[in-house]
Amino acid sequence: MEEILSRINSPDDIRKFNLDELTQLCKELREFIIDKCSSNPGHFGASLGTVELTVALHYVFNTPHDKLLWDVGHQAYSHKIITGRREMFEFNRKYGGISGFPKMNESPYDAFGVGHASTAISAALGMAEAARLKGEKRSVIAVVGDGSLTGGLAFEGMNNAGGLSSDMLVVLNDNKMAIDPNVGGLTEYLAKITLSGKYNQLKRNVWDFLGENRLRKLIQRMGASVKSAVLSEGNFFESMGLRYFGPIDGHNVEFLIKTLERLKSIGGPKLLHVVTQKGKGYRPAEENQTEWHAPGRFDKDTGQRIIVKADTTRPARYQDVFGETIIELAEQNSSILGITPAMPSGSSLNMMMSRMPERAFDVGIAEGHAVTFAAGLAAAGFTPFCNIYSSFMQRAYDNVIHDVALQGLKVVFCLDRGGIVGEDGPTHHGVYDLAYFRLVPGLTVAAPMNEIELRNMMFTAQLPDSGTYSIRYPRGNGVFDNWKQPFERIPKGKARVLREGNDLAVLSIGHVGNYAVEAIARAESEGISIMHCDMRFVKPLDEDLLHRIGAKFSRIITVEDGTIVGGLGGAVCEFFACNGYKVKVDRLGVPDAYIQQGTLRELHAECGFDVEGIYRKIKNSL
Amino acid sequence: MEEILSRINSPDDIRKFNLDELTQLCKELREFIIDKCSSNPGHFGASLGTVELTVALHYVFNTPHDKLLWDVGHQAYSHKIITGRREMFEFNRKYGGISGFPKMNESPYDAFGVGHASTAISAALGMAEAARLKGEKRSVIAVVGDGSLTGGLAFEGMNNAGGLSSDMLVVLNDNKMAIDPNVGGLTEYLAKITLSGKYNQLKRNVWDFLGENRLRKLIQRMGASVKSAVLSEGNFFESMGLRYFGPIDGHNVEFLIKTLERLKSIGGPKLLHVVTQKGKGYRPAEENQTEWHAPGRFDKDTGQRIIVKADTTRPARYQDVFGETIIELAEQNSSILGITPAMPSGSSLNMMMSRMPERAFDVGIAEGHAVTFAAGLAAAGFTPFCNIYSSFMQRAYDNVIHDVALQGLKVVFCLDRGGIVGEDGPTHHGVYDLAYFRLVPGLTVAAPMNEIELRNMMFTAQLPDSGTYSIRYPRGNGVFDNWKQPFERIPKGKARVLREGNDLAVLSIGHVGNYAVEAIARAESEGISIMHCDMRFVKPLDEDLLHRIGAKFSRIITVEDGTIVGGLGGAVCEFFACNGYKVKVDRLGVPDAYIQQGTLRELHAECGFDVEGIYRKIKNSL
Repeated sequence: MEEILSRINSPDDIRKFNLDELTQLCKELREFIIDKCSSNPGHFGASLGTVELTVALHYVFNTPHDKLLWDVGHQAYSHKIITGRREMFEFNRKYGGISGFPKMNESPYDAFGVGHASTAISAALGMAEAARLKGEKRSVIAVVGDGSLTGGLAFEGMNNAGGLSSDMLVVLNDNKMAIDPNVGGLTEYLAKITLSGKYNQLKRNVWDFLGENRLRKLIQRMGASVKSAVLSEGNFFESMGLRYFGPIDGHNVEFLIKTLERLKSIGGPKLLHVVTQKGKGYRPAEENQTEWHAPGRFDKDTGQRIIVKADTTRPARYQDVFGETIIELAEQNSSILGITPAMPSGSSLNMMMSRMPERAFDVGIAEGHAVTFAAGLAAAGFTPFCNIYSSFMQRAYDNVIHDVALQGLKVVFCLDRGGIVGEDGPTHHGVYDLAYFRLVPGLTVAAPMNEIELRNMMFTAQLPDSGTYSIRYPRGNGVFDNWKQPFERIPKGKARVLREGNDLAVLSIGHVGNYAVEAIARAESEGISIMHCDMRFVKPLDEDLLHRIGAKFSRIITVEDGTIVGGLGGAVCEFFACNGYKVKVDRLGVPDAYIQQGTLRELHAECGFDVEGIYRKIKNSL
Repeated sequence: MEEILSRINSPDDIRKFNLDELTQLCKELREFIIDKCSSNPGHFGASLGTVELTVALHYVFNTPHDKLLWDVGHQAYSHKIITGRREMFEFNRKYGGISGFPKMNESPYDAFGVGHASTAISAALGMAEAARLKGEKRSVIAVVGDGSLTGGLAFEGMNNAGGLSSDMLVVLNDNKMAIDPNVGGLTEYLAKITLSGKYNQLKRNVWDFLGENRLRKLIQRMGASVKSAVLSEGNFFESMGLRYFGPIDGHNVEFLIKTLERLKSIGGPKLLHVVTQKGKGYRPAEENQTEWHAPGRFDKDTGQRIIVKADTTRPARYQDVFGETIIELAEQNSSILGITPAMPSGSSLNMMMSRMPERAFDVGIAEGHAVTFAAGLAAAGFTPFCNIYSSFMQRAYDNVIHDVALQGLKVVFCLDRGGIVGEDGPTHHGVYDLAYFRLVPGLTVAAPMNEIELRNMMFTAQLPDSGTYSIRYPRGNGVFDNWKQPFERIPKGKARVLREGNDLAVLSIGHVGNYAVEAIARAESEGISIMHCDMRFVKPLDEDLLHRIGAKFSRIITVEDGTIVGGLGGAVCEFFACNGYKVKVDRLGVPDAYIQQGTLRELHAECGFDVEGIYRKIKNSL
């Protein structure tokens, strides 16, 4: 094993390979990824699907001079491995290691940093226009999954590319999947193209064997209506001004190379439709693509996934508390609907989708649409729960303001992955939401400290007159074994006083309040008397409580799993400064900087709001 | 005049009209709009283009039971006039009057509130699904301009509609324009459909005269290739799962009604392509569509626009200072490019577009793409100035964080219409940007107090090592006659002390600092001694100065044309509370609520940060 791969330090090393060597390289890459990911978890399935495509792209194009952009970046492991990061791949997604996504300052081969979907075409168009303006000869290639194509940004990029006529190649990596199976009208269209006999008959005959130049001549000789009949399948892309080629088999490295070589010489914006299989070459991953998108550790020989603890012996994940609770509520309240933009399994809305398929919607990777669609449902009298990861909610900010909150519509936003998310790193940390939602008039902004609070907030949000309501909770597990307690209404803006004290006050919000409980217990055992409040809401604030605190304490510590700029800490500072209280506030949270990847434990410690950090801050502030 | 119109109090009144009466109504509506808009300015051109379409839609559909959604809403004046707001139209866009846009709480006929582009399809889909879930028989119609179609949200909505197969009609109001001429690959495609001889020949013959049922039969009898040749133009929409109909003439009320009647009985998602002319029926507006999008007051007989003062006698508009300065800078720095999402005339980037067409891009109504496209250009070594109205920047928030700031790319964001914008009302007030940009690590967030400061900030932003830089300025005019002064670099995060004082400190940012100057002069004349600082930056803060202020003053007033939650006021409160200064801060700015429409003067007074308001606050706070 690794006979060839171990000699590859840059794409230069593969450009003189013959077909046998390329084929062997693909085989070894696949084995390498399976081996490494089995012990160091990562985005597994997508990268197995792009092995041949990656090799062919680097073989044909002169990277890094030619710019190669990967949309999202889940599929770029082979790219990382053959561009000088084979040894470092051991430390993929680890604290101090390499990022799980392409990242500009990590390698000159990473032409653009990614993480969120649908950005690559726009960025590639910028680079293509830059080359044109500078008069440089440079190919620009964006590799985009069919899932990413459901995001409006991808469409905006293609539409602009068609208008500008820039030299750019979009490679559509069509594997029919986002993390879950892809949805939307266009998905059916792509399937139709791929499966149709017309394609097999016409495209293969005409394009595959005649080649580009002879094809062009042939078309010129044909009448207009025949031409339209031959080429009409590509019209979605052609109508925006991109020339459409394909679909072709994404696992045939020889044919991929031949095709890319031909396309290299064709100017203007163009799209090559490549059909791949997620998990290709590893049976369990081929057979269950959603589970093997990011399977965690596994036994590579048996294909058995290794679950760290049995699910029954630990508290439930917050996402599952959401998933089960929305069903419970929906059974009582027929106005409740569920919405997710392409995250059924990640949000656990898949539970509702299988139990009440009529009442739960996966709208594709389209966060803005998810929110405005929810607004339309709410305007018609429904109560949609719109579940979007915190960092992805940044993509729907205007929709929340303009389409929901401004109209006072009753939509419940559930922001999963609120706070530091761990190994996915800075593109995915959901650390701004408390702060950017706090600015929105009329929006209630809540975060539960535990599963029971999450349930009660969800219960409260769907009651009449709750208005527009947002609930954010983190990745990972709660704290109770027995969280399924009867629902209780939580008064809007009412905090919980967890303990009284005299020396200082700790104001926390969200799950990290549990860290504060531990840190406070430790400090109390040393004789420090601390008041601890679980604020629950950054908007509206519990002003009665804050007046009491401002009158009693001169030292305040705020604790949140989010940016210290403008979040709970900011809200509390505004309150005290505007009311003229003589206090000194210490804000614990995510500092005003981009936090890299690592485990939750490592990153919470780095930010200083783990138990130890809170304890230290308590000691220092006295 | 107004023989018929004066009797229309709801669409019920027109549903028994014969064709002559409908035609007469259209004529009167047009005259009414011309008359009213000549003295009370509004969005003129788009509404003239939709007179017949509006009458036909309300004639055919049973509004408000059937849901009629207008995208953006610039085109909805006829709709407002015939749905009970004819008398109120006198007060269109006025303080205390009716909104210039459809608005849910203004009328049951306004099915969804709008203002920003591309939202109507998503919202309509929500309503269509709601009707399906409730088993209600209800048509849902979204009227969308071809300009709005360049926004990715519209695509996300159509793609989801195609997947869900909901009963919904999208009316594509194709007038080839946003405010400026529309751009992008799709625009060319729509033009091709409309102009092609094929359309004239086939579509008119087949669709217009055979009608839907006989057309279907005809198609069934034709061979596949002929069918594809006849119908292939619609494929962009058909590929997403929407049935395509048209294009048809949007000024023929009879044929519009006939067509809509036919479509009413066809299920599933469908699109009717209607061709209209902006400004239809008023020659000057037909001939210069951009200028007559929102022309201000005019003499309806001569077609002469009434400019309040001659341009030379008043200070320049901020947007023109931007427009001229970017050209000056670009002449010296060849890396500078300009980008606008469909606002060439609104941002005055049209100056650069005509002077340096290669270096200035209109990317369509696609704010997210504008920012990520800028990121791609910056990654390739250019310095793009990306000019986006403040309230529209909410649509590109993630792109700013994820694609630009996180990667430390040198993009200069120029946010025009920062602060209260006046007559456009709550959807367009740009009051959140200082607060939501302040959360973004690595972003410099600046706002100039006058034109010279704007020029110097633009100059500074393009210097090496300036990083990601944002400059926001308001709608309207500056303060100098002679603003074109030599450029000076502004140190990052450095405020200007405008005057020293002893009793209290006023910290302002942006143009409203000029109001503070006046208010302070008045208070000083009464013996109050005031320090006034133009903070220039909410990020980074001038901490040296704030330490000096915190040590000296116990009363601080902050003044900003933006939300008091988390903006300059928030930043200053955080600084003082975290550093333990004993101060009381009073924040003047936009309160935590949605401010309706009115003149700038009226709304600044309502918010309490006009000269009088600042003066009162100074007096009260002592």
